[in-house]
Formats: sequence, structure tokens, C-alpha cells
Amino acid sequence: KRPSHWADGRANMVNVSHKPESLRRALAEARVRVSPELAAIIQSQSLFKGDLFTVASLAGIQAAKRTGELIPLCHNLPLDWVDVRVELRDLTVVIEAEVHTTGRTGVEMEALTAAAVAALAVIDMGKSVDRGMVIESVRLLEKSGGQHGDYRAPDRREEDAK
Amino acid sequence: KRPSHWADGRANMVNVSHKPESLRRALAEARVRVSPELAAIIQSQSLFKGDLFTVASLAGIQAAKRTGELIPLCHNLPLDWVDVRVELRDLTVVIEAEVHTTGRTGVEMEALTAAAVAALAVIDMGKSVDRGMVIESVRLLEKSGGQHGDYRAPDRREEDAK
Amino acid sequence: KRPSHWADGRANMVNVSHKPESLRRALAEARVRVSPELAAIIQSQSLFKGDLFTVASLAGIQAAKRTGELIPLCHNLPLDWVDVRVELRDLTVVIEAEVHTTGRTGVEMEALTAAAVAALAVIDMGKSVDRGMVIESVRLLEKSGGQHGDYRAPDRREEDAK
Amino acid sequence: KRPSHWADGRANMVNVSHKPESLRRALAEARVRVSPELAAIIQSQSLFKGDLFTVASLAGIQAAKRTGELIPLCHNLPLDWVDVRVELRDLTVVIEAEVHTTGRTGVEMEALTAAAVAALAVIDMGKSVDRGMVIESVRLLEKSGGQHGDYRAPDRREEDAK
Amino acid sequence: KRPSHWADGRANMVNVSHKPESLRRALAEARVRVSPELAAIIQSQSLFKGDLFTVASLAGIQAAKRTGELIPLCHNLPLDWVDVRVELRDLTVVIEAEVHTTGRTGVEMEALTAAAVAALAVIDMGKSVDRGMVIESVRLLEKSGGQHGDYRAPDRREEDAK
Amino acid sequence: KRPSHWADGRANMVNVSHKPESLRRALAEARVRVSPELAAIIQSQSLFKGDLFTVASLAGIQAAKRTGELIPLCHNLPLDWVDVRVELRDLTVVIEAEVHTTGRTGVEMEALTAAAVAALAVIDMGKSVDRGMVIESVRLLEKSGGQHGDYRAPDRREEDAK
Repeated sequence: KRPSHWADGRANMVNVSHKPESLRRALAEARVRVSPELAAIIQSQSLFKGDLFTVASLAGIQAAKRTGELIPLCHNLPLDWVDVRVELRDLTVVIEAEVHTTGRTGVEMEALTAAAVAALAVIDMGKSVDRGMVIESVRLLEKSGGQHGDYRAPDRREEDAK
Repeated sequence: KRPSHWADGRANMVNVSHKPESLRRALAEARVRVSPELAAIIQSQSLFKGDLFTVASLAGIQAAKRTGELIPLCHNLPLDWVDVRVELRDLTVVIEAEVHTTGRTGVEMEALTAAAVAALAVIDMGKSVDRGMVIESVRLLEKSGGQHGDYRAPDRREEDAK
Repeated sequence: KRPSHWADGRANMVNVSHKPESLRRALAEARVRVSPELAAIIQSQSLFKGDLFTVASLAGIQAAKRTGELIPLCHNLPLDWVDVRVELRDLTVVIEAEVHTTGRTGVEMEALTAAAVAALAVIDMGKSVDRGMVIESVRLLEKSGGQHGDYRAPDRREEDAK
Repeated sequence: KRPSHWADGRANMVNVSHKPESLRRALAEARVRVSPELAAIIQSQSLFKGDLFTVASLAGIQAAKRTGELIPLCHNLPLDWVDVRVELRDLTVVIEAEVHTTGRTGVEMEALTAAAVAALAVIDMGKSVDRGMVIESVRLLEKSGGQHGDYRAPDRREEDAK
Repeated sequence: KRPSHWADGRANMVNVSHKPESLRRALAEARVRVSPELAAIIQSQSLFKGDLFTVASLAGIQAAKRTGELIPLCHNLPLDWVDVRVELRDLTVVIEAEVHTTGRTGVEMEALTAAAVAALAVIDMGKSVDRGMVIESVRLLEKSGGQHGDYRAPDRREEDAK
Repeated sequence: KRPSHWADGRANMVNVSHKPESLRRALAEARVRVSPELAAIIQSQSLFKGDLFTVASLAGIQAAKRTGELIPLCHNLPLDWVDVRVELRDLTVVIEAEVHTTGRTGVEMEALTAAAVAALAVIDMGKSVDRGMVIESVRLLEKSGGQHGDYRAPDRREEDAK
């Protein structure tokens, strides 16, 4: 199996002109570990909480729409829906980004880009309190639609199997 | 210590108009875990290798210049230098992004954005071979310049202490 | 009736993946009041007049295409047509922006964005002569296509009734 | 007095290369009239209120940074501060946008663009409830710094005189 | 025959809302003449060669996706494929850019923009060695799809006739 | 002499953080050959003429400000002045783009980008009349400021010598 971007020894976009349009969905996550001090500020101060979550969510939504500008070999696509959910679980800000579109190519990169940029915005919002934040994981959780078959991350498949 | 973005209960940019211009530097990293199959393709096939690294590097450089568009409360800044180094170490693609500028505000977010977007480009390049890639870590390694003092990540400080 | 952007207490895009594609049209206007001195310069000096109108018109057209980047919860859409008409009526520069597309969501925001940015460009062109210019009105005039029914601004409906 | 953009009968940017750098400030406002129904939703439902205001504010901040892309003859500038304040007063959403920079040219257009785009975002947020919203006024309130002297809008000067 | 952009004496986009979607293809070229010294560096030093070609190619691909932002009266379009091929022939860097899409309007401008921006990137890469580089030719080679019929550049037609 | 972008066998930006700020100027040209039919339309129809020239000029100005986004290894810079002059000489549309800035790096690429994109806009404006237009030459004419010394194109130096 050869990487589809690597035809002829040079970088190139995948030609999707002969693929049919269909509904494509992708779900990605990013996790940002924060200090107890920052977690406490996020959790206890309801006035401020909205902002961190809204700013991160909007940053992710905006980035998804510009994925084709950021990732050199991605297609530029109109998107039907971008939803970025942000919440604090203990010392981790958990971000889930979901993207739907009706098109000729999948939207994994759009979901991953939304999650990653939302995570960067979390760091920007909190960095004056906690300079050691780490984005611990950015990954695809689920994907459906298209010729290559659906995908579920290994831990999600285990859950399904239970 | 209150997050500097959260004055008055609403999101806002930090006002840097009264800060002096000075040289600011930041170094960030991102790590992408890949499958043995993808690592072998990256490592053994020299024709293709250049591409993966160059595409990721350019994606990171381009993203750094647009950080102010991606991160809502970041300043838009001319940058003096962006360097994105990408290499494969066992099953991890390691990305280091370094940014320098002469300005009134730091460039941590620019370095982090460059590293994160380069990592997203790695996923885009390899995803037809390995759909389970994970960006395992995106974090600030070092920062210098500006009023808030220099910063080194904990593991870097330990190394210094040896 | 709840605002469709406000589901679950967080900002989000409307999911349009299940809507059919159809022809959507929107017409918006913006009005910029100018001083008699500036109006005279615009009106009498034919050499210059073309420029003011062309610059404003192009600024509006360009902005319409980037509405999804400017308005956080708007969809990014390919547009079939953007037309921005600019003229001077007494002391008012009147701008009409019309947008057509074939898609799953309407183009009101595209037309409003085109009109508003064209009006900003008018201010930029004339501000060295008249620093007191005011954009007095930016509003939707007409909209057709889509599930929510057509719309005509109240004064247009009155005209229709005559 | 000839409009400074209209030298030689063709549109062009003002050459600022011989101007000294100095601190420039501008304050602009935009007003969006909303229906009683929408005003009540905005005012009474605190869960949602944050969102409308935050989304509008962020849209304005983001637009200010891209003024040079939107307004053809504006300079592209790094900005030291952008602050967009949004509040509901009776049936009007009042937006004030303040921009500071240290540069060779003023930031009126940046403040006006921030205010106008924030107002467009208000319309986008509320349009499913109220299709008749009107941006009633976008104008410069104050400006300081630079060679052309400070500016205060007429009604602000009257207030000063009291 | 009147230029289709010039209706009513003002610049405007062509309205394509009533055209059917179909597959459109365009092929454009750009040629950059370089000095013997630069050609030798490009040709002999295989380590570096990859970079020049990859950077130019990616610059072209990225630019094609943003043609609607660069060319004021172009439509903004999702593209199915962009391929930018770069090679050195004697003292000329030859760039061919091919674009496919399924849409209501052609992609000549996208192919020409990709070729021209790739050529600009070649100049940027080599200008520290050769300050006299010239982009000698940017032109459309072939176009197919759409109502106006296919097109082949005159020298290509001659070749066909042989 | 090694190309400055090619350190360490990988593409990278030039680090300018230790260079002093100074006034930089660059002048570039692009030439578009048009058919007699198109030249006649441009020349004789004064109503339309303004548009072609203004659209091309604005496209060039806008592109210059975004050079850092288009050319991967260029710095993103605030520009003090961009001027794009367009005229018809016989069967050639001649474009001259001049850029000034006060900064740590030169603006050749900004001037070349402005000229090239203005030329692309000329093709877009005229392509419904003349599908065989060719951009025959894009090149740097003059450059001043910075450490590497001033530059004048060979034919300009000959003129000087007379």
C-alpha cells in the first residue's frame, strides 16, 4: 500500500473528480492537560468559564473551514456542519470536533484541524496562569462515508464489542 | 493570578502598546506516533522521505505566519524567523518549531501553532497508510525575551541541572 | 422560537447536511452619508468617480466570498454570483449587494457582508475629505429560496401593496 | 482638499514610509436595532447571552486584524490591542471597538471594521428570530495620534463642552 | 463580442447560477529563465533539488485553492484536483499546473494562478544566487468542459495537426 | 555562493532578527500581450478602460499585502506603500508595481507578486474576448536598501550608462 499523496515521487493532491458526492462525517478529539490551579479557575469561576469554552470552540470552527489553506494537500471544501464541544474533566480540557459534509472527499483533516486549533486556543487562554500545558492527544475517533470504509479508533471498537 | 485574557468577564486581547520592542524567541515541539508500516515507508524510501518532511515543514512555517488569524486573541505579528525541523525517531515523527521576532509580545503561540499544523500535515500525508496516527504531545519547550521571564520545560530544566 | 445558533447553550453552526441544494438569492443594502463637500467631489469629478465606485464594489465582492471566514458561525460557500452596485444619491452613497448561490444554506450574510464592507471602503476612500461619514443603515432587502420562505423588507412590501 | 487616495486619477495607497512611528488610537461604534422579541431573549436568558456577546466580540477582533485584506487601500498592520465591547441597551445592541497600534498610519479603519463585522455577527446570531434587524449606525467616535490631529465625533464634542 | 466582466460599465462577476455542473479541466504553464550558475546548483545538487521543486509545487497548489481571493472577479470554488509539475530544462524551470473541478465555471484562472505563484516561489528560492531571473511566459495550454468549447494553445494545435 | 534558503538541506526562512530596520524599495514589472481586438476594446472604450486598469491595480495591491501567505519562505511584513500602475502600450498591457517598507528584509517578492497577480487579473478581465493572452515577462526592475546592495535590471543599467 503506497501513500496516496506520494505518486511519482512528488507531493500531490488526490484527484477526486471521478468520485461521487456523498455524506461524509468525521469526529476527532484533542486533550489538553492543565495544572490544578488553572483547572480550579476554569471550574469554579462561572463568569469566565463560558469564555474559555466559547473562544476555543469558535477557534476550532473557524479553523475547520480553512483546513484547505492550512494543510497543503487537502481539498478546499464547503462544510455542512462543524461542531466543537469543549469541557473540563478533572485536569484535562477535552475537545471533540465533528464535521459533516456532502462531497467527494472525507473530512478527517477538517475534524482534526478543528480539534487541534481549539486546543491551541485553550493554551492561549490559559498560558498566563499555566505555562506548562500540554496537548496530550489529537486523534481521529470516528469516520464514515466514502469508499475506504468507516473507521473507529481502537478504544471505541472495544467499547462497541462489550 | 488571573488569566490575562479574562479581564472584565469577557474575552479580550492583551494591550501591548506600552511594552517596548525586544527580541522574543520560542521553541515548541509536536510528536506524531506512526505505525511500523508507515515508519518503514518514511525511513526506507528516500525518494518520498523528502516530501513528507518538506510538506510538514512548509505547513508549519505557513501556519506560524497566520497564527493571529487562527488564535482569536493572539496579536498579528511580522515574524523574523520560522524554522520547522522534522525527523523520524523510531515510531515517532518529531517536530521542533522555532520562532524569533522583534516585537511587543511573545511568540509561544506561533511556535506551538507551527508545530501543531506540521503534525496535522504529517497525518494528512500518511493517513492512507495508517489511519490510527496520534499527535501525542504538543508543548512549549523554551521561551526567552519579554517581561515574564524565560521558560524551559521541566524535562529541559532537569537536563540543565545535570 | 429559539435562535437556531443557540442549541445546548453553546454557539454552533446550523447543520445543513440534510437540506437539499437549491438556488438561494439575497439582496442587501448599505447607506453611507457623506458631507456636501465630499458629495461634490464624488459627483463632479468624473476622473475620480469611477475609482470610488469600483474600489467599493470590488471590496464588497471580495468580502462576500470570504463571509465564512469573517462571520464565525456562517458556512463557507462557493457563490454563483456577487454583484455590488454603488451610486451617489444626494448626500448618500447607496450600495446594493446581490448574491446568488446553489446550496444548502442561504446567502443573507454574504449579501450583508458585501454591502457592509463596500461601505467601509467608501469611508476609507473619502475619510481624508470627510471624517464624519456615517454608515446609516445596513439591512437585508430581499431573500428567496430555502425552507424558511421568502423575505421582503417592510418598506418593500408596502411598495408591492400599492 | 483632495482625497489622499485619488492621486493621478487612479486608486492608490498612501505612502507612509516617511512618517514616524507613533501610538495611534481609534474608537468606533456600531448599533444594531433588534426586535422586542430578540431583545427579550438576549436579556433574559443568561445562558445564551454570553454567547451572542462573545461571538460578536471575537468576530470583531478577528476582523480588525484582517482590515488590510478587506479594505483594498488600507495598510496591513500589526495591532497592539483590539477590544470589542458589546451590550444591549433597550432595543439596540451597542458595539464599541477600540484599536491601538504603534505605527506609521492610523487605525480608524481597523476600529470601524471591527465594529461593523461584530454587528454582522449579531445579525447572524439573531436572524432566525428576527429577520428585520438593521445596523443603524457605524461611525468613528474618537481618534488620536498622527499628523492630522485628534478627532471626536460631533456629539462627543458637545458632551465635552458641557 | 463584449468582455463578459464588463456589463453596465462596471466590473462584475459572471452569474453562473443557471449553468449546469460539469467537469472542467485546465492546464497552464509558466517558464522561469535562470542563470547557468543557478541551473547548475539546481541540477547537480540532488539534496537541494527536491526542495526547490517541492516548495514551488506546494506554493502553486496552495495558490490555486485561493484563486477566488486573489483574482477579484473569479468565483471561489472547491477544486477536485490540483497538480503542479516542476522541472528544469536547460536554463528554464518549466512549471505545468493542472486543475480539475466539477462546477459551474471553468478553472483556467486557477491553473494560471498556480503556475504563476509556483514561478514566483522559484524566484524566491533562487534569488540569492541569481537576481536576474525572469518569468518569461505564463499562459493557458489547454482547457476543456463548459459551454464555450475546448481550447488548445496555438502551438499545441500545430502539434495535433502533425 | 549557496542559496540562502537551502541551509542544512531543508527549506527554511532566512533569519532576519539581527538585521537593522531600514527603508527598502523594489520595483517590478509584468507584461501581458493581448490581441488587437482586445487592445482596441481596452483603448477605445473609455467607460470600460478604467475598470480593467483599476481591477488589475487593486488585485496587485491586495496580493502584495499577502505575499507572505503565497510564497512559503517569505516573511510576512507590514508594507508602507504599494503602487501598481497599469497601462496599454500597443498590444501589451504593461504593469509596474512598486513597494516600499521599513523593515528587516527586502520587498522584491512583494513587488513581483503584485505585478504577477495584476497580470493574472488582466487575463481574467479579458479572457472572454481573447483566450490566447500571454504574460510575457515578470521581473525585478530595481531594488534598493538592505545589505546586499542595490540592483538595477541589465536594460536599466544600459540606459543609465547613456
